[in-house]
Amino acid sequence: MSFGEIFLWEMMGTAVLTLLGCGVVANTVLRKNRGYEGGFLLVNFGWGFAVFAGASVAAPSNAHINPAVTLGLAVNGQTPWSEVPIYIAAQLVGGTLGAILCWAAYKLQFDTHDDPANTLGIFSTSPTVPNAPWNLVTEIIGTFVLVFWIILSPQAGVGETPGVPSFGNSALGYAAVAFIVIGIGNSLGGPTGYAINPARDLGPRIAYAILPIRGKGSADWGYSWIPIVGPIIGGVLAGLLALALPIS
Amino acid sequence: MSFGEIFLWEMMGTAVLTLLGCGVVANTVLRKNRGYEGGFLLVNFGWGFAVFAGASVAAPSNAHINPAVTLGLAVNGQTPWSEVPIYIAAQLVGGTLGAILCWAAYKLQFDTHDDPANTLGIFSTSPTVPNAPWNLVTEIIGTFVLVFWIILSPQAGVGETPGVPSFGNSALGYAAVAFIVIGIGNSLGGPTGYAINPARDLGPRIAYAILPIRGKGSADWGYSWIPIVGPIIGGVLAGLLALALPIS
Amino acid sequence: MSFGEIFLWEMMGTAVLTLLGCGVVANTVLRKNRGYEGGFLLVNFGWGFAVFAGASVAAPSNAHINPAVTLGLAVNGQTPWSEVPIYIAAQLVGGTLGAILCWAAYKLQFDTHDDPANTLGIFSTSPTVPNAPWNLVTEIIGTFVLVFWIILSPQAGVGETPGVPSFGNSALGYAAVAFIVIGIGNSLGGPTGYAINPARDLGPRIAYAILPIRGKGSADWGYSWIPIVGPIIGGVLAGLLALALPIS
Amino acid sequence: MSFGEIFLWEMMGTAVLTLLGCGVVANTVLRKNRGYEGGFLLVNFGWGFAVFAGASVAAPSNAHINPAVTLGLAVNGQTPWSEVPIYIAAQLVGGTLGAILCWAAYKLQFDTHDDPANTLGIFSTSPTVPNAPWNLVTEIIGTFVLVFWIILSPQAGVGETPGVPSFGNSALGYAAVAFIVIGIGNSLGGPTGYAINPARDLGPRIAYAILPIRGKGSADWGYSWIPIVGPIIGGVLAGLLALALPIS
Repeated sequence: MSFGEIFLWEMMGTAVLTLLGCGVVANTVLRKNRGYEGGFLLVNFGWGFAVFAGASVAAPSNAHINPAVTLGLAVNGQTPWSEVPIYIAAQLVGGTLGAILCWAAYKLQFDTHDDPANTLGIFSTSPTVPNAPWNLVTEIIGTFVLVFWIILSPQAGVGETPGVPSFGNSALGYAAVAFIVIGIGNSLGGPTGYAINPARDLGPRIAYAILPIRGKGSADWGYSWIPIVGPIIGGVLAGLLALALPIS
Repeated sequence: MSFGEIFLWEMMGTAVLTLLGCGVVANTVLRKNRGYEGGFLLVNFGWGFAVFAGASVAAPSNAHINPAVTLGLAVNGQTPWSEVPIYIAAQLVGGTLGAILCWAAYKLQFDTHDDPANTLGIFSTSPTVPNAPWNLVTEIIGTFVLVFWIILSPQAGVGETPGVPSFGNSALGYAAVAFIVIGIGNSLGGPTGYAINPARDLGPRIAYAILPIRGKGSADWGYSWIPIVGPIIGGVLAGLLALALPIS
Repeated sequence: MSFGEIFLWEMMGTAVLTLLGCGVVANTVLRKNRGYEGGFLLVNFGWGFAVFAGASVAAPSNAHINPAVTLGLAVNGQTPWSEVPIYIAAQLVGGTLGAILCWAAYKLQFDTHDDPANTLGIFSTSPTVPNAPWNLVTEIIGTFVLVFWIILSPQAGVGETPGVPSFGNSALGYAAVAFIVIGIGNSLGGPTGYAINPARDLGPRIAYAILPIRGKGSADWGYSWIPIVGPIIGGVLAGLLALALPIS
Repeated sequence: MSFGEIFLWEMMGTAVLTLLGCGVVANTVLRKNRGYEGGFLLVNFGWGFAVFAGASVAAPSNAHINPAVTLGLAVNGQTPWSEVPIYIAAQLVGGTLGAILCWAAYKLQFDTHDDPANTLGIFSTSPTVPNAPWNLVTEIIGTFVLVFWIILSPQAGVGETPGVPSFGNSALGYAAVAFIVIGIGNSLGGPTGYAINPARDLGPRIAYAILPIRGKGSADWGYSWIPIVGPIIGGVLAGLLALALPIS
């Protein structure tokens, strides 16, 4: 597959991911919505099915839609290093575009929200208790589970073509990874809002910074490196550990 | 397949769709119900499994059950234009019939509800913040995601026979599209209640207008064009964009 | 398959169904429980996965676990009439046994509940607005959707062996029917608590009548015919209508 | 497969199980979390997808990740008795390690929780009404359903290779068992918090006893034998009963 096609599919898949993912948070945070205060399970099903939708759109490029997945697969030897910059660039562009579309879908709700300075959480993650080392630990553990599962999943019969890279090019594989993301959200999303994907956090943060959102506040760039560095460490650790395992 | 058979399956599938879909809203809105105030996630699982049920009933006609899907597939070249009027007519008739059945199932709850003038929302969608252009944008984006996903899904292995039109004639395909609908509801359903299907909105609105519902109010025909025009634009855009992609 | 084996598998499958199904209601109704007041979506996922568990246990007998399914398939010509009494007897015995096991699992919670006379709802269904004709209509519609979907599902690719009776002997088929049951609960369960299965209602009602439940009240035999007659009518109508369709 | 490989995969799978499973409870119990008071359905989806994640990681060792499953399969003749001690040792070590990782992910939330002596429930189960015999009954019934279903599931088409031990080496099999666990949690989890797995309870209890958790209370060793003995009895009963059935 050409670099251009990789870029195209990854960009579109990641755009669908953040359109739907940021969308479910907007739905629960902004007051004039059917899903206002809809609960954490709603948010997690939202992000899980956002991954399902985005990953199936990006199927031709093996559906990374996450730099931590790309880097984990690269250190594991499944993605050529020459393709890594293309993947990551496309994911960042797509993540930003999806968040802009989300803002358009919720334009009236942003305009009528009663606490407009406090809407960064729709776009980017933040910790409930700020503490750089432990926030990093949480993001590392969550992303490790995601990427470790993706690398091991062909052993478990996920995907109809277990020989191919990534988690298998099949609807069942994309549904399976959606369940894992819902699971990580349910189980490890409490402390930091589970970025577990640098493009999912940085892309929408850029969108927040540039969009004309009514009464918006700070984009909190001081925290922004944690949902980048944590997921990268977690993904790379998963790729390295998997190299040491007797994978069949 | 004959026009008559297309009409039959699409009508029955869309009737199941609005019977179950309007049903879940009735369950949460009308006071004398087990599901009263059951929350937005309940509503979205209700509509998602309504799509699953309706789409599997309409499997022989490729399970459009939505004029926006029919039109998107037509501009994409997957459905002959000669069949389009049959599909849409059947979907409208079915959507109306399903809503009438829903009213029968909830007859006692309508009769005992304490705010009978305010039950249009069981049948048709409405915006939380009325504004025609932005309401259109929300419906366009939501429907675009649905139809774009349906057209791309064979690439992702959805359906066991990826060569056939629509999203694949298999239970897995219908479960997958249900997940997408739940996802769109969770993530983009806040502002307008996600019609994303003209027959799902207009059919039940007609039912509301003609049914002898105790103390009913206006059918709000002033808004009714938005959940028709928005989904059509979204579906057509998805069909056109997909034509430009290097789909394998 | 011998009558004895049909009896065995249907009895065990229906026992698992009512053990788990009545269990989720006990969990939400009885105060000393983790799931107390857990909401209607919890109840519906409980019944849906109860169907999944019970149906997969009863797979060798084609997993009816519901007299309305057995009768619908019989009028549709898929189950011999000579087997029908065996199926129904097994379902009733199993439905009663499962409810007794549920009571054992929740013995301490029954003993410590503060309103013990009001626990019939854990076992059997009841209407929120009592009215025999309309309660019948609700049960007829809900069961019609269930049995109609089961008969049509092979067309939709549900089950790996679509030629066999019932909804296909495969895990995917049992998951699919669970989704349909969750959907019917979400969407049509409001008015009568969706028996949609005479054995699921009568079996546990018998269990309630005979068990030494602390402070128990009436078993409400006056209502008990509706969740028997309604589902039977719905199932038979579905079997008859399907005979008239051009099913491939 | 060598004893060492069995140990490796079971340990890792059980660690993922308790990391995610204890994680979802931490998320709902500890105040400074996105999922605080997120409800019992969130908890059950958390444990269900924890089983999905852990079981697919442990696929090479047939994904027991539960001594009650190992023993039930052993009495059923599907697992050699010589492997049983390896399986159980690995599950206990993994269960403990996963809980330690969970504590690390939630370190800041433990440190800022307002009732730190009351956090044992994040790690281990406890009864809402303490009573040894009836608490045992609840755990026996729940585990019986799990192991009985696992042994019978190949008949229902779960897993692509129904001849192999355990519940089939396929993603669909692991999703199916996750649905069963969610179902057991929804339906039988009310009274004792559904250990249904000695390693899931004892491993995290050991972790609670040894971890430097701020202000921690007792590990309640007096109750700890029930979630060990109950699940073992339930699993063994399921294995024995299945021997008497005419399984095809």
